[in-house]
Order: sequence, then C-alpha cells, then structure tokens
Amino acid sequence: MSDPLVLTLSCADRPGITANVTGFLFEHGCNILEARQFNDRESDRFFMRIAFDPLEADPDALKRDFAAYADRLGMDWKLAKRDRRRRVLIMVSRFDHCLADLLYRWRIGELPIEPVAIVSNHPREAISHTHIGEVPFHHLPVTHETKLDQEAQVRAIAEETDTELVVLARYMQILSDEQAAHFAARCINIHHSFLPGFKGAKPYHQAHARGVKMIGATAHYVTTDLDEGPIIHQDVEPISHADSPEDLVRKGRDIESRVLAEAVRMHVEERVLINGQRTIVFRS
Amino acid sequence: MSDPLVLTLSCADRPGITANVTGFLFEHGCNILEARQFNDRESDRFFMRIAFDPLEADPDALKRDFAAYADRLGMDWKLAKRDRRRRVLIMVSRFDHCLADLLYRWRIGELPIEPVAIVSNHPREAISHTHIGEVPFHHLPVTHETKLDQEAQVRAIAEETDTELVVLARYMQILSDEQAAHFAARCINIHHSFLPGFKGAKPYHQAHARGVKMIGATAHYVTTDLDEGPIIHQDVEPISHADSPEDLVRKGRDIESRVLAEAVRMHVEERVLINGQRTIVFRS
Amino acid sequence: MSDPLVLTLSCADRPGITANVTGFLFEHGCNILEARQFNDRESDRFFMRIAFDPLEADPDALKRDFAAYADRLGMDWKLAKRDRRRRVLIMVSRFDHCLADLLYRWRIGELPIEPVAIVSNHPREAISHTHIGEVPFHHLPVTHETKLDQEAQVRAIAEETDTELVVLARYMQILSDEQAAHFAARCINIHHSFLPGFKGAKPYHQAHARGVKMIGATAHYVTTDLDEGPIIHQDVEPISHADSPEDLVRKGRDIESRVLAEAVRMHVEERVLINGQRTIVFRS
Amino acid sequence: MSDPLVLTLSCADRPGITANVTGFLFEHGCNILEARQFNDRESDRFFMRIAFDPLEADPDALKRDFAAYADRLGMDWKLAKRDRRRRVLIMVSRFDHCLADLLYRWRIGELPIEPVAIVSNHPREAISHTHIGEVPFHHLPVTHETKLDQEAQVRAIAEETDTELVVLARYMQILSDEQAAHFAARCINIHHSFLPGFKGAKPYHQAHARGVKMIGATAHYVTTDLDEGPIIHQDVEPISHADSPEDLVRKGRDIESRVLAEAVRMHVEERVLINGQRTIVFRS
Repeated sequence: MSDPLVLTLSCADRPGITANVTGFLFEHGCNILEARQFNDRESDRFFMRIAFDPLEADPDALKRDFAAYADRLGMDWKLAKRDRRRRVLIMVSRFDHCLADLLYRWRIGELPIEPVAIVSNHPREAISHTHIGEVPFHHLPVTHETKLDQEAQVRAIAEETDTELVVLARYMQILSDEQAAHFAARCINIHHSFLPGFKGAKPYHQAHARGVKMIGATAHYVTTDLDEGPIIHQDVEPISHADSPEDLVRKGRDIESRVLAEAVRMHVEERVLINGQRTIVFRS
Repeated sequence: MSDPLVLTLSCADRPGITANVTGFLFEHGCNILEARQFNDRESDRFFMRIAFDPLEADPDALKRDFAAYADRLGMDWKLAKRDRRRRVLIMVSRFDHCLADLLYRWRIGELPIEPVAIVSNHPREAISHTHIGEVPFHHLPVTHETKLDQEAQVRAIAEETDTELVVLARYMQILSDEQAAHFAARCINIHHSFLPGFKGAKPYHQAHARGVKMIGATAHYVTTDLDEGPIIHQDVEPISHADSPEDLVRKGRDIESRVLAEAVRMHVEERVLINGQRTIVFRS
Repeated sequence: MSDPLVLTLSCADRPGITANVTGFLFEHGCNILEARQFNDRESDRFFMRIAFDPLEADPDALKRDFAAYADRLGMDWKLAKRDRRRRVLIMVSRFDHCLADLLYRWRIGELPIEPVAIVSNHPREAISHTHIGEVPFHHLPVTHETKLDQEAQVRAIAEETDTELVVLARYMQILSDEQAAHFAARCINIHHSFLPGFKGAKPYHQAHARGVKMIGATAHYVTTDLDEGPIIHQDVEPISHADSPEDLVRKGRDIESRVLAEAVRMHVEERVLINGQRTIVFRS
Repeated sequence: MSDPLVLTLSCADRPGITANVTGFLFEHGCNILEARQFNDRESDRFFMRIAFDPLEADPDALKRDFAAYADRLGMDWKLAKRDRRRRVLIMVSRFDHCLADLLYRWRIGELPIEPVAIVSNHPREAISHTHIGEVPFHHLPVTHETKLDQEAQVRAIAEETDTELVVLARYMQILSDEQAAHFAARCINIHHSFLPGFKGAKPYHQAHARGVKMIGATAHYVTTDLDEGPIIHQDVEPISHADSPEDLVRKGRDIESRVLAEAVRMHVEERVLINGQRTIVFRS
C-alpha cells in the first residue's frame, strides 16, 4: 500500500458528485478504503470524505487534476496524507488532566498527533503531575493588559512550529476575537458542561446549584462567539444529590479528557467538516 | 410480613437523628427493610427514607407516637403504606407515547400506580394508538379564554378521584401559576430536552439548530417558574449530523418515556424528597 | 422525488467498485441520497448500501442492467424500494412487552413495518395488555410432539402473508434446525442477555447469581446454532446488588424492547448485511 | 470535625441491628455522616457501612466496646479511618495505561491511595510512557519455573510495605492458587472483557470474532477460580463492524482505566463488601 490519502470536500449539492469523484479516483488508479457522504437538505450542500490508497498515482498530479475539477464545481476541498501526524499546539492553565491524557495517548501511539508546543499561563512547575518530557514548554503569563501581546507570541510559536491545530486543554483564558478568528476551524476547546447548558464560568457549580442529574463536557471549535462554536463531540455521566461541586469537578475530569481526545482524533483524522454553526463528523 | 410502611422525613441536621428514628422503630417492634439518609452540608438539613415492616405494631399508634417525636424536632415527615398504588391523574395532548408507556407499565403490574383519570385537551379519538380501556377519559379543551375554567375542572376531577399525583405526559399546555401552586410537589412534567438547555418550545428543533451531539429529556416537579422546577431524573442519547429534527423527535420519544416512567416510579415509591430547587432521590 | 430505492451488495473486494456502482447509477440518471461502504480486510470482501432517487430511471430496466453488471462481478445484491413497509410476522409467548412496543411504533408510523400476523403459543386472551386490534392473531400451541407440525403452520402463514421478516419478540420456544434454516437471514430474535454471556434459559437469574453489575439484551439473526447467530444490536444498563432477579426482569424489559425495535428498524431499512457470523450495520 | 471513621459489618439478619449500631454510635457521642445497609434476602444476611465523625469519642475505646457488641452477634466487622490513604501495591506488565491512570489520579489527590510499590515482570524501561517518579519499582521477571519464587518476592514486598491492596493493573500473569488465596479480598484485577463473556486470553479478539456490538471491562477480586471472582464494577462502550481488533484494544484502554479506578476507589473507601461470589457496593 502507498501512503493513503484523505480527500474531504463540500459543495452545492447536485447529481453525480459521488460518481464523478469516485470515478476520478478510479481513473487515476486509486483504491477507495473508506467513503462517507452527507447531503444537508437545509443548506442543500454536499459533504464528503474519502480515504484512498493512491497506488501508482502521483499525489501532485492527482492534486492538480482534482483542483481543476473542483474549481468547476466551486468545491471547498482538501487533500491530505491520512497517516501523517498533525502538528498540535496545546494550551493549558493550572488543571492538567486533559494535557496529561493527550500526551499519554500520543506517547503510546494511539492519537496521531505531534505535540509541537505546550503553552501555559502558568510556569512549568505548576504542571507537575504530567510527564511533559521533551515537548517544548512555553510559559506565557497573561494579564488583561498583556493579553494581545501574549496572543501574538502564541501566534508566533504556532507559525514557527507549523502548528496545524491548537487545542485548548482546559486553558482558562478567553481568546480575543482576533485570536479566535486567526485560528478559525483549527482551534478546539473543551468546555466543562453539556452545552448549551451552563455557559460561562464554574459550570459544575452551576450544575450543582440547578440540581441536574447528569453532567457533561463539550468539545467545540473556538469562534468569536463564546461557547457557541460548532460542537464536535459531547458526553455526559449521571450524578446524584450526594455529589458536591467538588465531586462534580472530579467526575467531570474523566468526561472532559475523553471528550477532548475524541474530538482531537476526529479532527486530525479529517473526519470533521464544518457546516455553518454545526459540524459533520464522519465516524468510520 | 405485615404491610410495609415508608417513613420519609427532613429536618435541621443534628447528632442522633438516625439513632433516634431507628431506635423508635425498634422499640415499636418494627423491622427495617431499607434505609437511606443524606445530610445536605449547604443547607445543614437532614433527609431520610426508611422502609420497614411494622410486624405487630399498630400503624395508628405508630403514627401518633412518631408525630409527637417529630414535632419536637420540627420535622417534615410522612408515613405511608409502601405497596399501596398511588392514585395518578395523567394529562396528555396529541402525542401519546408517554401515556401509552405509563399505562402499559401499570397493566403488567410494573409501575405501582392506579390511573384514576386521563385528561386531554384533545378528544379521545385523537389518542387512537393507546389502549386506554376502562380508565376514565376526560376531554377538556382549553383556549386562552377558558384556561382558568378548564383548570378548575381538572382540580375538581383530581379532588373527586383522590388524585395523589398529576403527571403531565407531554401535556403541551403551560399551567397557570395558581394551578402549579395547587399541585405543588405532586405534579411531574416531562420536558423534551436536557434542561437547562433548550427551555421553551420545540426543543428538538433548537437542538438540531445548535448542532448538539446528544439530546435528552428531563422529568421535574412543576413550579410556577416554567422549566425551572426541581429535577427528578434525566437521560440522554447520542445523535449525529445526519439526524433531522424529525429523527430527534423519534429518538426523543424513547428517552421521554423512560425518563418519565422512572421519575413516576421514584415518586410513588416515596424516594424523592424536595430540597429547595433540587431533589434528593434515594435509589435502592 | 420518485420512490427512492436501496441497493445493497457484497462481493470480493477489488478497485473501482464504488466508482463503477455510483457511475452506473449516475449514467441511469439516479441521484444518490446516502451511501456507505465497508471493506472487510479479513475476508477481503466489499459491502455497500446506497439509497438513491431513481428520478426518471425505469426501475425494471435499472434492475436488469444492474443484474448483468453484478453477475460479472459475482455480486450478492438486492434492489428494493426504500419506503415500502416490510411485511412482518411477529411471534410471541406470554411476555408481550416487545410485541406491545413494536405495535405502538408501527401504529404511530415510526417503524416502517406492516404486521401481517401475530403467532403465539398462548391464546389471544393471554396477551391482554397489548392493543392488538385488527392484526391477525394465530394461536398455535406447541408441544414437543407437535413442534414440527406447528412450525409447518407458521411457514404456511408466512407464505400466505408474503412475510418478509419473522420477529421472535420474546417467543420462548427454540426453533427446529429446519425452521431456523427456512427463515435464515430473515428471522430476528431478542435474547435477554448481553451475549455471549448467559446463554440459554433464565439469563437474568444467571446474571444475578454471577453478580454482574450490568445487564443487557441482544438482537440477532436466528441460526441453527442456538444463541450464536449474527448479532445486530446490543445494549446494557447498570444494576446493583440491591436488584433482585425480578428487578432485573423489569429493567430488562426496557432494554429488550428498545434493542429489538432498533434491530428491526435496521433490518427493514436494509441497513444490515450479514458477513459470516457477524453483521455490518450501516447507520445513517 | 475529628478524623472520620468508617464502620463496615455483616452478620445474620435480625431486627434491631440498625437501631443498635446507630444507637451505639450515638451513645458514644459520634455523629453519622453517611449510612447504607442491605439485607440480602437469599442468604438472610445483613450488610452495613457507616461513616461517622467520632467527635469526642476515643477511637480505641470505641473499637473495644464495639468488639464486645459485635462478638455477641457474630459480626464480621472493620473500623477504619475514612481519610487515611490505603497502601497499594500495583502490578503491571507491558501495557501501562491503567498504571498511568492510577498514578495520575493519585498525584492530583483524586484517588486516596498511597502507591508503596510497583511490581512488573518487565524492566522499568518498558514502562516508558508513565511518570513513575519516586514510587519504588521492582522488576521481578517470571517464568513457569520461577513463578512461585517470584510470588514469594511479591509477598515479601507487600509485607515490608504494609500493603493493604494489590492492584493487577493489566498484569498479564495468572496468580497461583496460593497467591490468590494469600491476597484474598485485597487483590483487584481488571479483566478486559465484559465478564462472563470472553474469559481467558485475547478477549478483544474473541469479541471481534463473535461480532458483538459492545465491548467492556470488569474489575473483580482475584480468587483461585480464574475470571470468576466477585465483580466490583463493569462498564461497556458501543463498537461497530468497522472496528478492527486493534480498534477494540484502543477503545478498551479507556474502559479498563476508568473501571479499574472506580473499583479501587470503592474498595479504598471501604464501600465494597463481599457476599459470597458477589459484592455489595455502597455508592454515596
């Protein structure tokens, strides 16, 4: 097998796209490994993800030829190597459970990422429970006054490291609109509530006060609209009256870690397509 | 075994309550079958549920004696037969899946209720999928103008039938503040969302528009504060981008039915104690 | 839109199948609505399901042309109307919760089936909790001696009613090997355990005795190998030490009903393809 | 508040135990924080767990007095400090995800344990993904011939370190009957299947071959009867036909980690009582 590729695309719906795209790949000698599509009736838009083995095909020629075809149809599209580890910049504050979880999954080869930088507004010593190892750690404190400067530093690190995805792994700072726009569609946040319930700060305390019987977490793309970005993944767990806010925080850690890891996996496997305020997630 | 009794109580927390209450039952010759307690640290309030076999004890004497003790401690309390079927009035609109579910569970002896009346703002013919049988059916149409009259009729039926619990089984009308207050702590509603997300009308359409990845349902006591009553039970299920609002409505039916049935079961088994805006649910 | 069709197929894997099949549909003027495929690496076999709008295409010509193509590739395939209600024969013993659930889902138009017959080894009066209505009911008692005769009667009813699917909705009789073979790939059973745990009789009692912390149910195709047929769907729920075998039976009813309904839905929507002892389930 | 204590006990059921035990604590000036009980109808045995604040009571006098009372009733009982971290010896082979998870939960103060030793049949370098830090690591290789010797070494380490609980965190070796008996009721294993399905080796491969639609994990006490010990906790997750055995191994890691952590938490909080081949788990 050659290096498998993944093609993702979206365009206005019309008959024949599937046949044309799969026919294109067949004519170029490629072998389809996995294919999913979705027609959104509301927006009348078509979304597709195809993983394929290019076999003898030349990736560059493939890309050039497909670009010509895609242009005619006004497609948004992307052709990427399936198995290349995506370069990820992880941002974290004082709570490091999501960071520890992501790094462990990376270390054992479970999550196909390459952590190129960890950025925290706290010093490395504050992240004492996590095996950071050789991953470059950047301590970038932030105050109201220095926020824009600090964000510029983050962008600089992202650029230097060819960062493809920014993960806010319980990074308890709100990005400026500029920063959110800069990393649009390539910045995932984990919110510690089952959105849209309990937006804003201290969601577990809100949940306790309201007396809900389940708590959850939400992984979503960051947009300029706080806690309103397209949701990638969510999960919940039952709780009881006997759970204090602290118990909820503890139970929440597990949910947050696995929801974020799943969202990152879906993103780096090119399984998430953004459809306005929503997402399409092509699970295998 | 004699007819088992259930004692539920709440009072300001202080040492010795458990010992005193269980000691009281022991001295009266009763045998405890099940006991749960909860100390709410925030309100410093104590909650308890004890199911017991009175054996030789005279229930009336037991009640009288306990009343004297409970008075001294300023207890809220209730002593009830455990296995007596609670008398339930079910209200329903056009969607009858929760009604059908409750009646089936009653018929096979699974849910210890006695349905004394079904009230609907639609005629009996509109509830054509459900095996209503001999349960008295009352068609009480309601308009903005007739609302208070109709509610008075509901109260009259409840009184005549010795209704102990009103279940809003997808009854798509908002109760007036008077009605909500009248049935306080004995009226359960099923809301077709995972509250506090998607309050108000058409929650499945709201959920679809927001692009959440799970939908849910919430059973709660009705209060004058719409969709804000104490929550008894909640559950959710995963959904995907491919689910239309109609798919959500379909998937939601299952969640609504089982969440409402569980809340009703917990209530009629005297397992739910109200603690301000929240509930304590003593599962076995 | 014309009447949508569903094409399902399987064959030895080889490059170009997706392109060829979707190209075939495009050339015949059809519009693909939904498509899924799966390459089983172990058996090197390819499986596909395509729902499409034939638009102007003549279904008969389509079928004839596809047959010629499919023959060349040695395909197993089926072309069916997507929205035609499949004709279902439901078998039931004394416990009717799955029957009641299926009929309710049918009545409200949720489950696209047409119940053509109910067969029970108990008389109609024994199924007293369910709203059977006009669905033909056949009381076919069975003993060890009459089993083969009774099964012949079932086959006769199935033939007369053009039954496409037999559902064993807690039908507590074991089919003979002949009967199982006769209805191969078109007979679904609900087993009240999370197979392969607790095969055979009284699984809830087995589960209680073993002290498991979750119980479940399994919907599978019936084969001559008891409790070993290809699994279509499974689900579980947590239980506790306080649950008696009777509690497990009660909790199990909910799981059984929803697992069976989901399996039937997947089957009648032509979403289940059998792959040896396993199944492929193409959810939307 | 003084140092809270936890009393767990079991004895033949008889009226008055709850009243007597709670009365005993009240008379000694203790304040009950949490209490649970269970009457097992089958064995006619009574189980109880009480957490309490001893206030002014002298723990030693309390223990002495309670021993006298418990003796008369033939009770099995234990009085322990609630918040003292239990001393845990963790055994691991090549897969270290459960170890990493337990150590992280310990480090952030979530799991009230004190890891006194890690024992592995692989060298420390093989456990390269986990932040072991200062926890003593013992490399004790094992072969068929050296098994009994190696087990004696484990017992020696357990003795020297005052180990209270042995956790087999994916320790892929079967303990000898002697070893299992030695650590009876204080050795928890995580089995990577939803027992009793898929006992023995390579359960994920068994699950794939059988075509189940969910996989799970089981935490249980180790007994001389392999994979048959009393189950403490179980959980599952849905899988699909598209999951290879390797995918199952990956998804299984998450389930194993959280199931084992929950079982360890329940054990060290003295919430698990063994009842023959089953357990009673008193969740809060």
